[in-house]
Amino acid sequence: MTKGGPVEFFFDFSSPYSFLASHRIDGIAQKHGRSVIWRPILLGVVFKEVGMVPNAQQDRKWPYCERDLKRFARLHNVPFVLPEPFPFSGLQASRAFYWIEAEDPAKARVFAHAIFDAAFTQGRDVSLPGTVAAIAQEKLGIAPDQLLAAIADENIKERLRIETETASAKGVFGAPFFLVDGEPFWGNDRVAEVDAWLQSGGW
Amino acid sequence: MTKGGPVEFFFDFSSPYSFLASHRIDGIAQKHGRSVIWRPILLGVVFKEVGMVPNAQQDRKWPYCERDLKRFARLHNVPFVLPEPFPFSGLQASRAFYWIEAEDPAKARVFAHAIFDAAFTQGRDVSLPGTVAAIAQEKLGIAPDQLLAAIADENIKERLRIETETASAKGVFGAPFFLVDGEPFWGNDRVAEVDAWLQSGGW
Repeated sequence: MTKGGPVEFFFDFSSPYSFLASHRIDGIAQKHGRSVIWRPILLGVVFKEVGMVPNAQQDRKWPYCERDLKRFARLHNVPFVLPEPFPFSGLQASRAFYWIEAEDPAKARVFAHAIFDAAFTQGRDVSLPGTVAAIAQEKLGIAPDQLLAAIADENIKERLRIETETASAKGVFGAPFFLVDGEPFWGNDRVAEVDAWLQSGGW
Repeated sequence: MTKGGPVEFFFDFSSPYSFLASHRIDGIAQKHGRSVIWRPILLGVVFKEVGMVPNAQQDRKWPYCERDLKRFARLHNVPFVLPEPFPFSGLQASRAFYWIEAEDPAKARVFAHAIFDAAFTQGRDVSLPGTVAAIAQEKLGIAPDQLLAAIADENIKERLRIETETASAKGVFGAPFFLVDGEPFWGNDRVAEVDAWLQSGGW
């Protein structure tokens, strides 16, 4: 693997642990002279492929996860709510991301933060195309009609399918998931190890 | 919940993440004037009860876990191997633990460390009663015949069933699992939060 390339950050917009990681990964990469490639995927598609079950569908585990998420957010002073309904679909937001990114990756980053914050700090239902369009308008001045047409376009739908398949082919099975010079790190609780790996070049 | 009581440490002798946590939890608790109650359980029984699947039975996840375990061990300078066969049963070692603990909790702690180290630093097969008895003899001078009789005793078998049911009733669904004044922490990757919680009294 070539070292020094961008950190790959795979996530689902509906993943609260990805939201928590999204606030930290860029700063950590930047500290070590790295950029980050943000890659929204449909984690549900990967779960079906590999036979895994989402946390929110596990009766014993999920109440713990809710507590764990809120506890982490309080410790790190990150505003956090779980939107209702939860879980929700990140499909429309992910399609919009790739459409915006094709024009301007920096704008896509702004959009991704805005979607995450709308869902997990304001509790907005970002599964709705109208909400996704409203957020793109608020943050980036994108005309809602244009965005709604774009996310209904077959090319964009195909793009998201390919990105999800690509992530799966790279071994992704959860979110957030990071690849650092090919080394895989799964979970918000591995962000500190990503930092250490970038610092040391691995161990 | 009364504060200041012992930290409860639930684990399965066959859980490599529990092994990694077992090296740190006593020192952390001691730093904050707390003791630790070690509670081996049969995690497989809990998994069946709640419909969860062990990591080692998940084709996509398990190779990552192996890498993650070895990476953590290298970073923290902990000798680590995965024994073969893996996964293995912690049944006999858990029964032996409770029999030894009934006489002397400090000896049970020594025994637990010895079982974990035999499995995860030397790769010994601690699922075998003979190996468990040999380790108890090596470390504590316990006569093998006596230990083998004890772990075949119905009272000890029942004791382990009750401990596993009790853990499950407290919400345990994985290992290692910690209860700190009633607050649940799951995973080797929450040990630092256990430390912070004991330090601050919670947040």
